[in-house]
Amino acid sequence: MPEYLLGIDIGGTSVKIGLFNLEGFLLDKRSIITDRSQNGSHILRDIAVFIKKNWLLSSIAGIGLGVPGPVKNNIVETCVNLGWGITDPKTELNKYFNYEDIAIKVTNDASAAALGEYAAGAAKGYSNVVLLTLGTGIGGGVIIDGRLHEGVDGISGEFGHIVVDKKHAFLCNCGKRGCLETVASATGIARLAKYNLDNTDLSSKLRNMDSFSAKTVFDLAKEKDEVAVLTIDEAADNLAAMLGSITLTIDPDLFVLAGGVSLAGDYLLQSVKRHYPDYIRPFDVKAGIVLATLGSDAGIYGAMQLVK
Amino acid sequence: MPEYLLGIDIGGTSVKIGLFNLEGFLLDKRSIITDRSQNGSHILRDIAVFIKKNWLLSSIAGIGLGVPGPVKNNIVETCVNLGWGITDPKTELNKYFNYEDIAIKVTNDASAAALGEYAAGAAKGYSNVVLLTLGTGIGGGVIIDGRLHEGVDGISGEFGHIVVDKKHAFLCNCGKRGCLETVASATGIARLAKYNLDNTDLSSKLRNMDSFSAKTVFDLAKEKDEVAVLTIDEAADNLAAMLGSITLTIDPDLFVLAGGVSLAGDYLLQSVKRHYPDYIRPFDVKAGIVLATLGSDAGIYGAMQLVK
Repeated sequence: MPEYLLGIDIGGTSVKIGLFNLEGFLLDKRSIITDRSQNGSHILRDIAVFIKKNWLLSSIAGIGLGVPGPVKNNIVETCVNLGWGITDPKTELNKYFNYEDIAIKVTNDASAAALGEYAAGAAKGYSNVVLLTLGTGIGGGVIIDGRLHEGVDGISGEFGHIVVDKKHAFLCNCGKRGCLETVASATGIARLAKYNLDNTDLSSKLRNMDSFSAKTVFDLAKEKDEVAVLTIDEAADNLAAMLGSITLTIDPDLFVLAGGVSLAGDYLLQSVKRHYPDYIRPFDVKAGIVLATLGSDAGIYGAMQLVK
Repeated sequence: MPEYLLGIDIGGTSVKIGLFNLEGFLLDKRSIITDRSQNGSHILRDIAVFIKKNWLLSSIAGIGLGVPGPVKNNIVETCVNLGWGITDPKTELNKYFNYEDIAIKVTNDASAAALGEYAAGAAKGYSNVVLLTLGTGIGGGVIIDGRLHEGVDGISGEFGHIVVDKKHAFLCNCGKRGCLETVASATGIARLAKYNLDNTDLSSKLRNMDSFSAKTVFDLAKEKDEVAVLTIDEAADNLAAMLGSITLTIDPDLFVLAGGVSLAGDYLLQSVKRHYPDYIRPFDVKAGIVLATLGSDAGIYGAMQLVK
């Protein structure tokens, strides 16, 4: 008898698997290594084998998957990080399940995180929510009127690649210049700090370091290190510009900041909130801006929501 | 017996009133002067009087209104152009109608235009549509999954006030600098041309004119006038940046360019299309970009759709 739901978050390093009851309560969490060899062709097989080894297929009511790439109608368009081209996880998994025809749905990982925070985290009770995942890169998910909005081609919420910074115009992985990701992701913040070390005379402990992470920049900013303060201020300004742009485009009631960079916590939040009014009109109603609360579990919660 | 629907577009100069049959076919168009005296307090009364004089109230099944300001749940938040503060047109009109309780719905004028083009114009057959009205200012409307998306506070689609141009950073009416409106509306294009006359040595017939309109700049650009070509290229680049940003935010299938500036036609369209790929990733699916087809009737068509 079906009594469980699985929420699975496929990342470039590991696959997180959450076991939920039918009410969406998290019962157990596991993870397996993401085998990216041979264009990631073993990943879905590994997941199927793990599931069959641990649970009776007949006890699984549905499986939701979050993947790091654009998804449209449950078909993955591409996943550079996994090596995948167009992929149909539902059909492939069901093949390994001997066509038991388990309900399987798929979405983008940041969309899953948005759905997770909306259903069980920081955005509970709101109905128009935009989540930004601030990690190595920047992604996002959009909830409109209580429903996940993937967009016509599955690229809704790709905030990391919106051009916001023509001043530095750093080259992005995507080939464009000045994408939000180049100045506000973890790698972007480190890059921006290096630029400020090279192009200002401001004092900084960063000058004595061969390399450093975004976390170090945040830590030093909290200690009022001049280059670090400037850098975080610029990163927060670019994030605020993005939130202003989203506000005047779809007017959500809540923004959720998630991902590794959001662990900088209140310092990041207050910096973004300080700049946000510069990018909307004085009489516009400001959307709330909060930090995610589910941490790295947001993806499995949201993936599970797809089949709940 | 109710046999008509009215679609009404309240502008700063005139109020357009469309008479439609219940199938949404336009039967007649009228207009009255917008009386902006005394904070526009006569406008709704004038509309009610005009309706009662021309049609039997019992023949009107519903009235849709488009107004130049943010609207939330049929309540107008503010209309600077009309002099209105918070206004409830439904209650007020029904007062003049002796509480006949006619169905009355209200939305923003650009949202109405989007709905009009979606139901009966350039966006017929699409389901995720973003319309930009390029006039004296810039507004917009957003259709998501076949429904008008006004946003939580009615400010969805306010593309004119998204900051895109930190290079010139012209002061906007809204108090911010670098809004799309400052470089891509009719007034913005004229302003940008003046800036280029003052800050380049490029040749231009505009140098012999005391003042000129955006239309003149377009006309000269088509004749390869150097300043005009540069100006339209910059305006189109900013519009394209906005379309890229919207694409990566909500991923629509069609953009519709409407309003006076869109009358520049194919020259504008091709300029925007040329720059659009610079603002999305190479593998992203490009949304269509087309010109509006209903012209100044889009608003009455869309307002009517609210009550159809």
